[in-house]
Amino acid sequence: MATAAPDLDVTVDPNSLRSLVDGRWAHIRTQVREQLRGPLFAPTHGLGIEEHRNRVYDQMLALAASGLPRLGFPKEYGGGGDIGGSVTTLEMLSGDLSLMVKAGVQFGLFGGAIQALGTERHHETYLKQVMDFELPGCFAMTETGHGSDVQLLRTTATYDPAAEQFVIHTPHQAAQKDYIGNAARDGRVAVVFAQLITGREGHGVHAFLVPIRDAAGRARHGVTIGDCGGKAGLAGVDNGRLTFNQVRIPRENLLNRYGDVARDGTYSSPIESQSRRFFTMLGTLIRGRVCVAATAGSATQLALSIAVRYADVRRQFSAPDSDDEVVLLDYLAHQRRLLPALATSYALRFAQEELVGRLHDLAEPLDPSADEAAQQRRERDQRELEYRAAGLKAVATWHATKTIQTCREACGGAGYLAENQLPQLKADTDVFTTFEGDNTVLLQLVAKGLLTSYRDHFGSLDTLGLVRFVAESFVGAVIERTAARELIRRLVDAAPGTDEEAGLYDRGWQLALFEDREKHVLEGLARRLRRAGTGDEAFAVFNAAQDHLLYAAQVHVDRIVLEAFVAALDRCPDDDCTELLERVCDLFVLSNVERDVGWFLQHGRLTPARAKAVTSAVNDLCRRLRPYASLLVDGFGIPDAYLTAPIATGIEAERQKTMREYDRHA
Amino acid sequence: MATAAPDLDVTVDPNSLRSLVDGRWAHIRTQVREQLRGPLFAPTHGLGIEEHRNRVYDQMLALAASGLPRLGFPKEYGGGGDIGGSVTTLEMLSGDLSLMVKAGVQFGLFGGAIQALGTERHHETYLKQVMDFELPGCFAMTETGHGSDVQLLRTTATYDPAAEQFVIHTPHQAAQKDYIGNAARDGRVAVVFAQLITGREGHGVHAFLVPIRDAAGRARHGVTIGDCGGKAGLAGVDNGRLTFNQVRIPRENLLNRYGDVARDGTYSSPIESQSRRFFTMLGTLIRGRVCVAATAGSATQLALSIAVRYADVRRQFSAPDSDDEVVLLDYLAHQRRLLPALATSYALRFAQEELVGRLHDLAEPLDPSADEAAQQRRERDQRELEYRAAGLKAVATWHATKTIQTCREACGGAGYLAENQLPQLKADTDVFTTFEGDNTVLLQLVAKGLLTSYRDHFGSLDTLGLVRFVAESFVGAVIERTAARELIRRLVDAAPGTDEEAGLYDRGWQLALFEDREKHVLEGLARRLRRAGTGDEAFAVFNAAQDHLLYAAQVHVDRIVLEAFVAALDRCPDDDCTELLERVCDLFVLSNVERDVGWFLQHGRLTPARAKAVTSAVNDLCRRLRPYASLLVDGFGIPDAYLTAPIATGIEAERQKTMREYDRHA
Repeated sequence: MATAAPDLDVTVDPNSLRSLVDGRWAHIRTQVREQLRGPLFAPTHGLGIEEHRNRVYDQMLALAASGLPRLGFPKEYGGGGDIGGSVTTLEMLSGDLSLMVKAGVQFGLFGGAIQALGTERHHETYLKQVMDFELPGCFAMTETGHGSDVQLLRTTATYDPAAEQFVIHTPHQAAQKDYIGNAARDGRVAVVFAQLITGREGHGVHAFLVPIRDAAGRARHGVTIGDCGGKAGLAGVDNGRLTFNQVRIPRENLLNRYGDVARDGTYSSPIESQSRRFFTMLGTLIRGRVCVAATAGSATQLALSIAVRYADVRRQFSAPDSDDEVVLLDYLAHQRRLLPALATSYALRFAQEELVGRLHDLAEPLDPSADEAAQQRRERDQRELEYRAAGLKAVATWHATKTIQTCREACGGAGYLAENQLPQLKADTDVFTTFEGDNTVLLQLVAKGLLTSYRDHFGSLDTLGLVRFVAESFVGAVIERTAARELIRRLVDAAPGTDEEAGLYDRGWQLALFEDREKHVLEGLARRLRRAGTGDEAFAVFNAAQDHLLYAAQVHVDRIVLEAFVAALDRCPDDDCTELLERVCDLFVLSNVERDVGWFLQHGRLTPARAKAVTSAVNDLCRRLRPYASLLVDGFGIPDAYLTAPIATGIEAERQKTMREYDRHA
Repeated sequence: MATAAPDLDVTVDPNSLRSLVDGRWAHIRTQVREQLRGPLFAPTHGLGIEEHRNRVYDQMLALAASGLPRLGFPKEYGGGGDIGGSVTTLEMLSGDLSLMVKAGVQFGLFGGAIQALGTERHHETYLKQVMDFELPGCFAMTETGHGSDVQLLRTTATYDPAAEQFVIHTPHQAAQKDYIGNAARDGRVAVVFAQLITGREGHGVHAFLVPIRDAAGRARHGVTIGDCGGKAGLAGVDNGRLTFNQVRIPRENLLNRYGDVARDGTYSSPIESQSRRFFTMLGTLIRGRVCVAATAGSATQLALSIAVRYADVRRQFSAPDSDDEVVLLDYLAHQRRLLPALATSYALRFAQEELVGRLHDLAEPLDPSADEAAQQRRERDQRELEYRAAGLKAVATWHATKTIQTCREACGGAGYLAENQLPQLKADTDVFTTFEGDNTVLLQLVAKGLLTSYRDHFGSLDTLGLVRFVAESFVGAVIERTAARELIRRLVDAAPGTDEEAGLYDRGWQLALFEDREKHVLEGLARRLRRAGTGDEAFAVFNAAQDHLLYAAQVHVDRIVLEAFVAALDRCPDDDCTELLERVCDLFVLSNVERDVGWFLQHGRLTPARAKAVTSAVNDLCRRLRPYASLLVDGFGIPDAYLTAPIATGIEAERQKTMREYDRHA
């Protein structure tokens, strides 16, 4: 079986590559690169907490002044109505991730909640001040006791019909709002999520606008504000704790789009099911997840840019019979650390591009005259978007954690120094895997979504709980292709199947392999969960299958990421660029197969000989792509101003040059 | 095939467990727990660099005053002559790893180099001041341009016979000494590694005592001292940069045990080969590696203690048909994150215990009347110790990096807060994978050692280069059992082999499986390397096999770690404790097999059905060990004073209790 990768000898125009990677919102990327430069936006390190908070506050003012944050808000309130542009703006703030997070809290979560959960009265009063950062705000959802299971938050909002007010209250310590961005120092108003109670009846979690500080910055009466203090990273974000002691707010401060309380205390909602209402409200979190995935991506790209540039000039150890020391990136072990991660970063970049596109397009309201089928399709698309955002967020942030760590180690002691940026990138992104939805929880959401959508084909939808979704039998699983459907169908149809004849580099075979893995894992999962009964037994069955469940979500995401890569290859207008990216795609696929080689062997999808060939192919692809590594990291288009690490700039190359010259004369 | 793990229903005496884990230097552990407590040694966070350096300096004074650092020095100079005790002391400093590193630099590297590379005149002048921290010093080996390949350092030490002095000089920027601990602020003298040149002839790298600061703390004439500034962690260690401009030192400042220069400039050495001389000198680094492995272990144990204690009380999400929220550690996914890592930490603890024992015993000089065979055995043991220290250092520090990261994520947002200690543990230990020998380089050293020792059985030793070691044929590989040899032989002999009949929990089968994997991987590696010719071709062959080489080292270390675990089980005097640890050992083994399941399937060592059974067995073992998780982390004996994280103390349990009481009344 031939395992050698196709030869690669191309001359790629960096601009073609950049333009493909920049994608649909290239104009926003250009705008951000031009507008947000200068010393205020350059990476820094070693600032104290207060100093860093001050700096990020100043950055926020400059960002607001640039008008960029308006992009994500509705045109009727002075916004740009450009969701994709707004996500792209945040993605481009990777020079200091504290700024990205603070901006995400202010414009995405706080502003986004007012926009999505509020109604006209809230929009008119607040949106302009939010966009311009005149009213810094918080998104107070998480409590000390509940971060993932926010349906069980304990903060209460009890309606008092006599005063026409809600009383916001923290009943015990585990119910305090915790880790809240913008709370410790700057926030003046918080969107507080609390259990709405009226006439002794609970209606589930709703969102309320609660003033927490007066204009002078003092905590309002009844509000106790704490500071979360030092964190692993993101020192520029003032995370805090909020406790409410019978704090009264006007009835109108309920963000009442999905549930309202009349003056007399009567509750009403356009959505009958309390659980469904809650998950509709949570839909507002999608954009946050998309932004986190985006920023995890740009931070990873920055880390790879540093590690690859360094590895491309740094030398260590002489080759046998040679006085010349070997460049790090010429070592297979070093290639294996960096290049598959680089290939995966390309794959995720294209998947992200597609995700942002869908988020943007689905933000357009449906034509009111659309028929029921169109409405159902839209709802289904919306749900699919939620799952995809959750899945990509999990995969992209774990990829970031792992890759930035690898980059740090690949730079040795130099990678440990703050001046070389990697410590800050690692520390700042570290929380991405657990905030805006813990990755483990998100992947379970994805698996649930997959099982549900399969059931849609065969029976009615029942939302009583994850285990229930598959309590009845269904026949087989259906793979919904997500990108470039026609092209992918043609490629898969043309492939010789998953057997030995297909070349490892046959895209159709690769696509079919990923589809087949997903289908098999999901079907097996459904079979296991179907055994679940009720109560303790149901939990035991679910729990015993939890690793299977997480794996199902993982391989689903792998498949949609590959499809996005294939779609991007199809869009690439430049032959040499396409050829290069074809090999990058191969490396993404085959290193992914190598990761799961145990699964493929165990399930008879690969023979031992072919599994061995996959390893050889990964090595071979590393060797072929090695000369293009620096070109590929340049393709990410990290703004020059964000790359300050001495080891990634000319300084290291200069050192090496001087040393070699000295050696020649010595 | 039965995959269910044996039932586990034991009542373990925590003291039995602790005493087994504390091991041979239990008395030192007790002493450190008692002596180094109080506010000065409690974990802190959020200190600025200067403040943190001051604090660690004060800790160093208190540590010196305790007399503990004397343990590692020879009795004739007032030391304790107890190498094992000195390593154990450092291991116990995990409350603030900056202290561990600074102490390691002062007493281990700086003091250790004077002791090992110097002769009487140096010992008499310096050792007392070093032990008492009256003379803070540096170990100036690494240069900006050379960290791993220290044989190619560029700093020069040129002998001037007229003045009877050496001239220490930094020829260009890449030759500056970099990342040097104790250099930026406190160090007064540095052991500088430089190319010794006399009469225009180079004799390779030697170590020199170079004063860098006067008593007032000012840099000496010709010495330029820089500060490495902020790092990912270890803020309390003052890493710096040293540049020498023709700095003159007396001839006597050469640490002359392995090479000396007479007044007239004549060079002499008891070791003829320049390369062998250099690697003998590098042997002084062993102790540093052993200490890093030890501290990586104790830091990992601390992180696991925090994450397991939290997971044992924290609840999230209700089970189906239940109002009770589920305790995190009852989730399979959560068990899978923490318990195999916990089992591996136990395994590494026992391997470390054995390593320290060997280091200690081999520090005893051989009886001068020993015959040649005994001398050869000693030399061989010494070399084996070097490889084992290198291998365990790599494996233990990667385990630390991965496990502490997992613990951080397993604690969600709380794990990101400085108050919960995990950020500091992560940041401080992060450099362990690349300092005191980059892990990738160390594993190559291990593989080289393995190939060499096999060759010893069949031919003469040739040290021309890694590739050369196996250039000629040799017949098969020999597994040297490292611990409890007799017991292991009996277990392996009694096992039904690696076929399907053996139970997954059969220790003999497990041992044979690990041996067989190591043997097969090594033999394959030797076959590949044997194809190497010379020059470019040799490099290409070596390079193409680099991943194979690293894997060979990894599985070798896995095997010796397992053998150490088996030896520890044999030492355990308490039946219930043994039974518990038998299951912990199973989990270590089977999760390790699961990690490499692709390899076992690919090489026909497991059938697909048996591979599936391994996964079920890991799940089953997690379930059985779950009730003992807190007991097991307590077994590590982390000093109470080091556990300050609110989530790991009664505070979190209290929160949960209050919430549940409130819920009952609400």
